[in-house]
Parts: sequence; structure tokens; C-alpha cells
Amino acid sequence: MTFELHPQLAADTFEVARLELCELLLMNDARYPWCILVPRLPGLRDLHEVPAENKQMLLAEIDRVAAALKALTHAYKMNVAALGNMVEQLHVHVIARQRDDAAWPGPVWGVGEARAYAEDAVAARIEQLRTALR
Amino acid sequence: MTFELHPQLAADTFEVARLELCELLLMNDARYPWCILVPRLPGLRDLHEVPAENKQMLLAEIDRVAAALKALTHAYKMNVAALGNMVEQLHVHVIARQRDDAAWPGPVWGVGEARAYAEDAVAARIEQLRTALR
Repeated sequence: MTFELHPQLAADTFEVARLELCELLLMNDARYPWCILVPRLPGLRDLHEVPAENKQMLLAEIDRVAAALKALTHAYKMNVAALGNMVEQLHVHVIARQRDDAAWPGPVWGVGEARAYAEDAVAARIEQLRTALR
Repeated sequence: MTFELHPQLAADTFEVARLELCELLLMNDARYPWCILVPRLPGLRDLHEVPAENKQMLLAEIDRVAAALKALTHAYKMNVAALGNMVEQLHVHVIARQRDDAAWPGPVWGVGEARAYAEDAVAARIEQLRTALR
């Protein structure tokens, strides 16, 4: 079995970086700075199924992205979640939340409609993220 | 600074166990088998702030609870999340989801009203969890 990014995740996001374990994606929803990490390991659904030898790297990459996104956006709170009710391929949301964002204080999923990024805005965001992660 | 469980978490949950790092709590909402892990470390808000020396233990306890809860409930999907928009003290939700539960396929937070457990049902659930974690 080889890893392939779920087509729904591919359709909803932009590629930011190929980390050591995970594909780092940016959700195409300009309402929130919202990253998604997908371990390049085939067949995983639940977080607790990640093999022991990949666990630390996954957590390190989640932390690295969360810290970078928080510093970039001056987020009030970071939300980190592995839900996967809609797209079963294991993926971890890392979302920068502000007290005046569209869903605060609730979770972001299923609230209103995603607002697609303008082309230059998404390019700028991706470049910021890449720089912050270097 | 010493650790004290946030009063809102205390009010919304039952104590299940004192794990090596975390307090293990059961959310008082009979609609979902829903555990909450709270690391006994004062002053933490975001997951990426957990000190390196406690990280592996936290992840191990999350995995252990998720696997136990999944086995107990035959859950279709486990949801794991550190949000903390309402209660800022770092806490990690571990929720067993079924395709016919009250919020499926959305997240559980903010959906309808919590349904309190009957006394014997909660005692049974806590005992099952303790046994599964032994």
C-alpha cells in the first residue's frame, strides 16, 4: 500500500511543504489560518494507530506548525484536532483562533461557508509559513 | 504555581483515574463516550506548550485512553482534540463516535444539550474504563 493524499483533502487545500513525516497543507478558507498535517503513511484512520516509530515525529511536526502559525498570526488560541469523520484518512488540523473570528468560541468545522483565498493572499500566506518553518 | 483542575471541567465531568501525567475525566454527556485528559501541569493552554519531558507521556496516555474507549464502545471513529476556546486550561478530548450519534458527522461541541448520565450508568461506564485501562 502506498500513501496517496485523499482527493477531498487535495481539493480543499494548498500544498505548503513536505515535512519529514507529513504533508503540510493550508486549508482554502481565508476566515482562519488553518493548516492540515497528513502523515505520509498509508491506511491510517485514528491518531492512536500511528506506529510508535512515527509518533514523536508527528507530535514534533504538529508542535512546529502550531508554534509557527501562532507566532505568525498572534493567535489567541491554537486548536489542534484529529477528527476524520468526513475524510477518514488521518489528518491533523492546526487552526489559529482569534476571539473575533467567524466561529469563536465554537469549533470551526461546519460553520458557514469557506471563503476561498484570493490568489495573491494565498501565495503570501504560504510563503510566510515556509519562512516561519525554516 | 500548583495544578488545580479548572472548576468548569470539574463541574462537567466525573473523575475516572489519575494517570501518571493526566487526570482522566468522563464528560457528563451520555450521548457520547467522551473522555477528557488534563495534564497535571500548571499554566498550560496550548498543546505545543507541553514541556518536552512530558510530551511522550501525554501522547501515550491519549493513545491508551483512545484505544481503550474504542475497544469498549466499538466506535466507528475516534475524535481527539485540544481546543480550549471555552476553558483555557489545556485539556484533550477523546471521543468515541458512531455514525448514528447525535452530532455525526459533525464535531460534538456545541450541538444540542448534554444529556446527564443516570447514576448507575455512569458508575458502570467508569468501572468499564478503569478495567480497560488496567
